[in-house]
Amino acid sequence: MKQSQLFTKTRKEAPKDETSKNAQLLIRGGFIHKEMAGVYSILPLGLRVMERITAIVREEMNAIEGQEVTLTALQEKAVWEKSGRWSDDVVDNWFKTELKNGSEVGLAFTHEEPLTGILKEYVSSYRDLPRYVYQFQTKFRNELRSKSGIMRGREFIMKDLYSFSKNIAEHEIYYERAKQAYIHIFNRVGLGDITYLTFASGGSFSKYSHEFQTLTDVGEDTIYIHEGKKLAINEEVYTDDVLENLGVTKDELVQKKSVEVGNIFSLGTQFSEPFELTYTDEAGIQQPVIMGSYGIGIGRLMGTVVEILSDDKGIIWPEALAPFDVHLIEIPSKNDAVHAKAERLYVELQKAGKSVLFDDRIEARAGEKFADADLIGIPIHIIVSERGLADGVVEIKTRKTGESKTVQDNEVV
Amino acid sequence: MKQSQLFTKTRKEAPKDETSKNAQLLIRGGFIHKEMAGVYSILPLGLRVMERITAIVREEMNAIEGQEVTLTALQEKAVWEKSGRWSDDVVDNWFKTELKNGSEVGLAFTHEEPLTGILKEYVSSYRDLPRYVYQFQTKFRNELRSKSGIMRGREFIMKDLYSFSKNIAEHEIYYERAKQAYIHIFNRVGLGDITYLTFASGGSFSKYSHEFQTLTDVGEDTIYIHEGKKLAINEEVYTDDVLENLGVTKDELVQKKSVEVGNIFSLGTQFSEPFELTYTDEAGIQQPVIMGSYGIGIGRLMGTVVEILSDDKGIIWPEALAPFDVHLIEIPSKNDAVHAKAERLYVELQKAGKSVLFDDRIEARAGEKFADADLIGIPIHIIVSERGLADGVVEIKTRKTGESKTVQDNEVV
Repeated sequence: MKQSQLFTKTRKEAPKDETSKNAQLLIRGGFIHKEMAGVYSILPLGLRVMERITAIVREEMNAIEGQEVTLTALQEKAVWEKSGRWSDDVVDNWFKTELKNGSEVGLAFTHEEPLTGILKEYVSSYRDLPRYVYQFQTKFRNELRSKSGIMRGREFIMKDLYSFSKNIAEHEIYYERAKQAYIHIFNRVGLGDITYLTFASGGSFSKYSHEFQTLTDVGEDTIYIHEGKKLAINEEVYTDDVLENLGVTKDELVQKKSVEVGNIFSLGTQFSEPFELTYTDEAGIQQPVIMGSYGIGIGRLMGTVVEILSDDKGIIWPEALAPFDVHLIEIPSKNDAVHAKAERLYVELQKAGKSVLFDDRIEARAGEKFADADLIGIPIHIIVSERGLADGVVEIKTRKTGESKTVQDNEVV
Repeated sequence: MKQSQLFTKTRKEAPKDETSKNAQLLIRGGFIHKEMAGVYSILPLGLRVMERITAIVREEMNAIEGQEVTLTALQEKAVWEKSGRWSDDVVDNWFKTELKNGSEVGLAFTHEEPLTGILKEYVSSYRDLPRYVYQFQTKFRNELRSKSGIMRGREFIMKDLYSFSKNIAEHEIYYERAKQAYIHIFNRVGLGDITYLTFASGGSFSKYSHEFQTLTDVGEDTIYIHEGKKLAINEEVYTDDVLENLGVTKDELVQKKSVEVGNIFSLGTQFSEPFELTYTDEAGIQQPVIMGSYGIGIGRLMGTVVEILSDDKGIIWPEALAPFDVHLIEIPSKNDAVHAKAERLYVELQKAGKSVLFDDRIEARAGEKFADADLIGIPIHIIVSERGLADGVVEIKTRKTGESKTVQDNEVV
């Protein structure tokens, strides 16, 4: 894409009320726009990153037999009363509104209830199980405060998968597969090294849930990591009992701040019971369905990457998530041959399968272009200037290291 | 995909309160699930159709230089007060809710206001225009009644594009390009023949807006079509004055019921003025930006296709929108060779680039499978049975015509 056509521009300053680094950089780079605290529109550069994250997560969910759906935001009171989660005393972050006829409706903050209701229409026999259903869908959460940029939104896209299994053994096998899929995802987006499988509080059904916690000082969580075993314990379950249970000792653990980038949860019959989601087993006996839920916030993941992979100049996207593979920068010149060469490279790089943001702006100075490119954070910068024209070379700079080298024109691609 | 694994099943009956044919067939086929009137979850088969529609629309919007974004559902009061559209007396289908601090927020029913606000941050010079921005995003409209299935939802995905031009001449050129893009879209989804460019009421800025109206008896609109000129006039502007203006006479026109599947609208300065969205032209003079808006409801389009392309057995998807290219149906048999042959074909068809729904269910009878396949409406059915085994043939049936022929195994792909 030609940068002269892109409707966004970089900005020197983020809005004054924006205190989080992730949103500051993303707003300044033109990736997102702040509508209000915790509510951000996604602009073209941001959407490209979100789509790359989504594609990775979708691949991994399909690989563990997930079937994709899109459930609704608007939710009926009766559905949530079944599980006891309609009341604002139980769930304190509902957004509620009403239909013209006066019926109260809610905006879904999660989807266990409606999906369990849907499955009830299709599951009756052991032949109908197991089933795994997921979506990328907008959640609404009426957070009291929202100061972490896109890491804790009032409106945000979440991937949520729900598993429906015949029994605990079958559930546990899938739970392990989901755990592995999550590890793949965090490796692929470039957070693998600093993301820890973390033991957190379970529910009535299981002793623990598992979170994926990524180390960062801006995280809202405190965890105790065991470097050798690559696991962590959330402070909420940091007790002698749990330590013993996991076979670790206090002196092996280091306290860290972190952000929860994913969580997987054994739900047991918490939802299948009130919804009477049962099946007839091979012996003709009615059995309750065993459920699990598996979440990843797509925007939070983008925000976490920005918090961690950035420097004082801007964002440093990992290759897998960058909005474009290459930032091609033309240094404006009175010599038409510079522009012709940049245009030629733009076409050739795309022919070679690379996505390219081409800074073809004629009114911007070289320094401005370099600063913009560092802020936007595409991994590779290719600089076409008059200086390299005579020698038939361009400069190729790596955003991460700042190192640059001179390459012959015919060797660029 | 193997049908034995798909979590949905066909249903004999739609919910009793569902009176529209589109939702009845889509629910019975397992494409959607009704949460409440006008609110439908999209299930795997439905999502595949929606994604094909989305891909076509996205291609056409990119072809006319659209830049994709995703704006937010939650909307601040102050933004909509600028244009005078916050009041429930002006806009009667708002859903409103509030933040924990008591601030009222709305759920967007359209996005002129927030997008104009965003563009104001990026547009200042003639060099920044024109710009075209679009999204596929969930709209919320608090309809008093909602009885048309997915053709008039309270929550639905809409593609909305907004154009920002320097002057009326530039706007009009783009408006024509958008019109052509819309014609391409309706041709590609199989509604071209019965979709009419329709003159409808304009606004303070232009005499007319243009709707794309598709003929169907369940439509809520009445239009007067001119077959020769392939245009129509919405009854709301069906006056002698307009007829004369368009150079047509009453006796050339036929009254029809129709559904509005798209609309394009010249907005002039209706939004740029209150938002002070202006630019400095080449002569250094401040000028207002001229806007247009261009909408297509993705769910409504799916519903319209189902209303029109269906028979008493079920849906008849056009090739471009079908959830799968081929429905491969194995007639259960005690002879293992039947299943082996079906499995082989399943692999071969996919290798040849066809998407396949493979009805491998062992517990369903042949008649059930045929009825299900007719209801789901994939264009081509390939039937593998014991009968064809000895002769090395399969039966290939066209859903639309019901015609079937026998084809040698090695000629199927």
